[in-house]
Amino acid sequence: MAGSTYGTLFKITTWGESHGAAIGVVIDGCPAGLSLCETDIQSFLDRRKPGQSRYTTKRNEGDKVEILSGIFEGKTTGTPISLIVRNEDQISRDYGNIKDCYRPGHADYTFSEKYGFRDYRGGGRSSGRETIGRVAAGAVASRILQQLGIEVRAYTKAIGNIVIPENEYDFSCISQNSLQMPNQAYALRAAEYLEECMKNQDSSGGIIECSITGLPVGIGEPVFEKLDANLAKAIMSIGAVKGVEIGDGFHAASANGSSNNDPFRTASGGHDIQKATNHSGGTLGGMSDGSTLILRAAVKPTPSISRVQQTVNTSGDEIELSIHGRHDPVIVPRAVVVVESMAALTLIDMLLINMSAKLENIIEFYK
Amino acid sequence: MAGSTYGTLFKITTWGESHGAAIGVVIDGCPAGLSLCETDIQSFLDRRKPGQSRYTTKRNEGDKVEILSGIFEGKTTGTPISLIVRNEDQISRDYGNIKDCYRPGHADYTFSEKYGFRDYRGGGRSSGRETIGRVAAGAVASRILQQLGIEVRAYTKAIGNIVIPENEYDFSCISQNSLQMPNQAYALRAAEYLEECMKNQDSSGGIIECSITGLPVGIGEPVFEKLDANLAKAIMSIGAVKGVEIGDGFHAASANGSSNNDPFRTASGGHDIQKATNHSGGTLGGMSDGSTLILRAAVKPTPSISRVQQTVNTSGDEIELSIHGRHDPVIVPRAVVVVESMAALTLIDMLLINMSAKLENIIEFYK
Amino acid sequence: MAGSTYGTLFKITTWGESHGAAIGVVIDGCPAGLSLCETDIQSFLDRRKPGQSRYTTKRNEGDKVEILSGIFEGKTTGTPISLIVRNEDQISRDYGNIKDCYRPGHADYTFSEKYGFRDYRGGGRSSGRETIGRVAAGAVASRILQQLGIEVRAYTKAIGNIVIPENEYDFSCISQNSLQMPNQAYALRAAEYLEECMKNQDSSGGIIECSITGLPVGIGEPVFEKLDANLAKAIMSIGAVKGVEIGDGFHAASANGSSNNDPFRTASGGHDIQKATNHSGGTLGGMSDGSTLILRAAVKPTPSISRVQQTVNTSGDEIELSIHGRHDPVIVPRAVVVVESMAALTLIDMLLINMSAKLENIIEFYK
Amino acid sequence: MAGSTYGTLFKITTWGESHGAAIGVVIDGCPAGLSLCETDIQSFLDRRKPGQSRYTTKRNEGDKVEILSGIFEGKTTGTPISLIVRNEDQISRDYGNIKDCYRPGHADYTFSEKYGFRDYRGGGRSSGRETIGRVAAGAVASRILQQLGIEVRAYTKAIGNIVIPENEYDFSCISQNSLQMPNQAYALRAAEYLEECMKNQDSSGGIIECSITGLPVGIGEPVFEKLDANLAKAIMSIGAVKGVEIGDGFHAASANGSSNNDPFRTASGGHDIQKATNHSGGTLGGMSDGSTLILRAAVKPTPSISRVQQTVNTSGDEIELSIHGRHDPVIVPRAVVVVESMAALTLIDMLLINMSAKLENIIEFYK
Repeated sequence: MAGSTYGTLFKITTWGESHGAAIGVVIDGCPAGLSLCETDIQSFLDRRKPGQSRYTTKRNEGDKVEILSGIFEGKTTGTPISLIVRNEDQISRDYGNIKDCYRPGHADYTFSEKYGFRDYRGGGRSSGRETIGRVAAGAVASRILQQLGIEVRAYTKAIGNIVIPENEYDFSCISQNSLQMPNQAYALRAAEYLEECMKNQDSSGGIIECSITGLPVGIGEPVFEKLDANLAKAIMSIGAVKGVEIGDGFHAASANGSSNNDPFRTASGGHDIQKATNHSGGTLGGMSDGSTLILRAAVKPTPSISRVQQTVNTSGDEIELSIHGRHDPVIVPRAVVVVESMAALTLIDMLLINMSAKLENIIEFYK
Repeated sequence: MAGSTYGTLFKITTWGESHGAAIGVVIDGCPAGLSLCETDIQSFLDRRKPGQSRYTTKRNEGDKVEILSGIFEGKTTGTPISLIVRNEDQISRDYGNIKDCYRPGHADYTFSEKYGFRDYRGGGRSSGRETIGRVAAGAVASRILQQLGIEVRAYTKAIGNIVIPENEYDFSCISQNSLQMPNQAYALRAAEYLEECMKNQDSSGGIIECSITGLPVGIGEPVFEKLDANLAKAIMSIGAVKGVEIGDGFHAASANGSSNNDPFRTASGGHDIQKATNHSGGTLGGMSDGSTLILRAAVKPTPSISRVQQTVNTSGDEIELSIHGRHDPVIVPRAVVVVESMAALTLIDMLLINMSAKLENIIEFYK
Repeated sequence: MAGSTYGTLFKITTWGESHGAAIGVVIDGCPAGLSLCETDIQSFLDRRKPGQSRYTTKRNEGDKVEILSGIFEGKTTGTPISLIVRNEDQISRDYGNIKDCYRPGHADYTFSEKYGFRDYRGGGRSSGRETIGRVAAGAVASRILQQLGIEVRAYTKAIGNIVIPENEYDFSCISQNSLQMPNQAYALRAAEYLEECMKNQDSSGGIIECSITGLPVGIGEPVFEKLDANLAKAIMSIGAVKGVEIGDGFHAASANGSSNNDPFRTASGGHDIQKATNHSGGTLGGMSDGSTLILRAAVKPTPSISRVQQTVNTSGDEIELSIHGRHDPVIVPRAVVVVESMAALTLIDMLLINMSAKLENIIEFYK
Repeated sequence: MAGSTYGTLFKITTWGESHGAAIGVVIDGCPAGLSLCETDIQSFLDRRKPGQSRYTTKRNEGDKVEILSGIFEGKTTGTPISLIVRNEDQISRDYGNIKDCYRPGHADYTFSEKYGFRDYRGGGRSSGRETIGRVAAGAVASRILQQLGIEVRAYTKAIGNIVIPENEYDFSCISQNSLQMPNQAYALRAAEYLEECMKNQDSSGGIIECSITGLPVGIGEPVFEKLDANLAKAIMSIGAVKGVEIGDGFHAASANGSSNNDPFRTASGGHDIQKATNHSGGTLGGMSDGSTLILRAAVKPTPSISRVQQTVNTSGDEIELSIHGRHDPVIVPRAVVVVESMAALTLIDMLLINMSAKLENIIEFYK
């Protein structure tokens, strides 16, 4: 089935595979009147670009975006915005040892079984390059959120066992280290750990956290289109993500109601209702509750490692495999902007959908 | 927006609130020719019925399902199946102290803000009774899965800090204890812990695990309609769920590629490809990989506790609240069948969708 | 597949077959705050009720609607509204000669081929009774449209060759004749023609026209979700409809651009732009253009006639069939309210969707 | 809202406006294993290309399609197929008199009102060039239908009052005249009529008919996703179409049941059930009935005419407008392949959806 479209009112359709001619996205349902140029999108794409540090692949692609439609005189027209990034770095390679085998931790086997064969060049559609379309669209979604006073900020919370405690966050650091961590000391320790992984021809997992502020109360549609449910889908659809949690998440499982419930209070004389704590992570009943929305994604270690692995080839013979070439020892830092993008895309869609919740608003709108 | 419909080809629409006239579901897209009677559905509903143990509410509802359409001579006809459960236990109550305040951990505040007011009777649409429609539909989905040789089994993995290690599972125990745990000794300890919670006028969270066997390889649609992404949404849409993980889940974040990757091997002379381990939890690239699919849901503690809590009333005054009446000290045991239902509904939809993946299958089908 | 759900933000799911226990609809996405009681819906249902004249079946059903959810203290809550009508008139009948044969002009053969068998009682899901759900939902949609100053009015334009010319419409007559025609003289001639059809054991087709006033400009979403495209689908999905046209419709095919184009003019000093004529029937580029929207549906003659027909039984033998029992000689009058309902449902959905067209509106909404 | 996506399992998303950088489509859900190259698509695009006769615009664009993704070693991979056509003929033009006024019969006014402003270059998104994406996707859909033995053939039935009677069709002629008519004599008369229109600085409407053979019985999903309902939407979504009918269509409105019903018969000894006539046009109950599916679309006259017209400018002044430049005197011949494409896209989607109608088929599939 068509699985490459996401969203209802603000809808994106991504396309393209790792070593095809190009990769892109069509954004449909973007409201008219938004100022938008290629630079706005490029700045997002640059955050996921390879080759930015020792811990990201050396693949040297410009990943320059081109806007093909939907903009007139610098503004969105309400019609589909088509964005394209040419794949420049399609070196004629020998895929020999990958072509005929199923790499552990990759989608080679499942793609082959589902479709009867697969595009084996660099992972095809299951490559991390698929996220280019998501990020380009996320840039557009983020620009709208910004105008609504909503900020989406993702960062690396953990790499391997190096986990930054919440009370040691310093958000001003995030862009100062290539690992996107909100604490320079932890970033240093994480870097050392990654050096060790590389020395061992191995890779590491990690955790990305995303914090969203400025959301109005009540965003999300009970009972299946809840905000947290849609965020969970959006984030879990990113290649290497194996878990998603909101607020206290899995820690809530071992908590008691008396400590997990967030008391309500009024900030200023009875009119500004707030929660005194935020164990819920910004949602109640699947709708935004006015607190900061907090979600975390567990990212598995890069499956491509140069260490020898046991696997099977397409003829069914058991073989040994060693994967060479350029591979990040950790997926997390480059996936930060992907998490941010998927969160932004989910939010904008649900914000638009929420506009029809109350009859009085509709009457007011069409008056 | 319409948020009460789930699924694409196999689609359910649930309706009804806690203290309304009835609760129900319409199942649309159920294939024709399935034997189905009320008993098949009732057995699922009975698993979530209140009043079955000390740890579930005393509310004594029959929750008897009636089939209103879609069945002819004992078989599904391919047309919508409408199922209804009357709310029998609508005691005329005084909702006085709940009516005018926002209960911590509940959706009172978010519903009021989104829609302008709320049905305050027993939680309205955000009540756990909303899951009756999910479970009734899940019973139908499960019957089809059964015929395809697919088994979905959920159980309680943890209550509070009482966590059953994987190597101590005994699935034959699950129905022998009211907590739905696959280990009698742990069930006993969990029961003791819950007694303590109740004595403290408190409640506990827990973890539900779901294991799915017999799935064909390749189920799930890249890149947004992945099997794990849709499962994450389905499970996160259940009221009290705060986190979802697949396979090693959050543990993968601290793992290395060399240990997290599952080697492939061939079982019998090169034709039956399998994974030697199952860290991935049964999905690769968002598609089923032939191993057992494992997912876990973190369930928060019951928010309704009789202990005094701080909160705010609808006039914005800070007040103290003590919630009386019948409330489970833990949501987990009754939510087990809800997790199983949402998983079954997701699987059947994705299985139907997968049928059109290969041209040769379509040609064969229409020959 | 699930084919019984219609709409995106304002979504309905109908269920039920002719001789099952009940028939109903779930309305999801209805904005909160609409006053709604059973009488509001009943008045719509009564317009399609059988037994109101010589030309509608004698079947004497009360068709009383019950609201099962979604209303609290007389207002919609934003949650799903479940409506049910019990089938009271399920006389234990002998379906003998219908059971085993394929009636010409009916869906017996196609249902059997698609699903492997069929519910042969009174047409099952393909019965005209299926429209009860549509009309009940249409009543709710119409109430909202009314509050937005939008009026949807359908009526019988033609029965057989008796066609009322546009310049002889008198809308005050519509409810004064059982044929729902806006001209008493034509209604009389049509009645005479139907008497003749009945004498000949035959039936007649006709044309329903629907006129919609008060629509804002710009409703409809290019390029596939155009207002006229969605109306065409909605109307063509009604059982006996074989054609749909907007404005001049098929007459535009033989027209010239110079006469078919509607000149624009300004009504009052340059600010109220209008079309001087309305050949387009109220849409330009698939969006409402501020003029009255005019659509017409061609309705085929009732396929059930008592005259002897040639057909085939389920064993494949060629047989003669004579259909007895209660059947309207014309479908049109009772389908008028169905057309009105499907138009109203389409309009309300597209009005809600249109709210997110402009960025400035979204910013204003969330300020 | 996102209105540029069509289909459920076989989904297309079109993008691009008349004078933007490019126009294209993403086809998602195309089954894997279909041989496909640019030539296959180009041959369809060439049928709608301008400049092929006196009656189509002189705009000389190559309209060369490029495949950007979804194909590997000559076959579809099951992943999105991105197709792009660069707009080569973007002469720097003076849009002066069009820029500031609302052309009668065009979408200038409705686009401006909906989105706040419009891309006035050549009609923007409401240009006929938008159909390039539809036709490119239609070429792919048609290739699959071909492999299933289904043929979709559209042609010009009428231009102005020149209507070819059904018994004078000669399908071998269609490609022999630039008007795509299945009768050379009528084509000649139509050409003469068009010369006259051009001399009068005027344009003409017409009727496109589409005949579909080889469809299995039972395609279409009651009650809203009926085959005829979806075809009606698909065809009505084409720019200039003002009416759609199936089989006898509007003529059925004046017919009697006895003549409109199609008797069933058995062709060869009781096993091959057929209809003796085909007034229904190939559908019963909204599902294909085994007969040839016949649909007709009423196409309005080209709204751009050089004759002087009354209109209003964006300041609200009443003005006179004369539209110069290259404009077809009739839209019909170039829209023939668009109708064929939209029909093919609808059919392939409904064929895929139909595969899950019967439980036995699903069990067989997954055995």
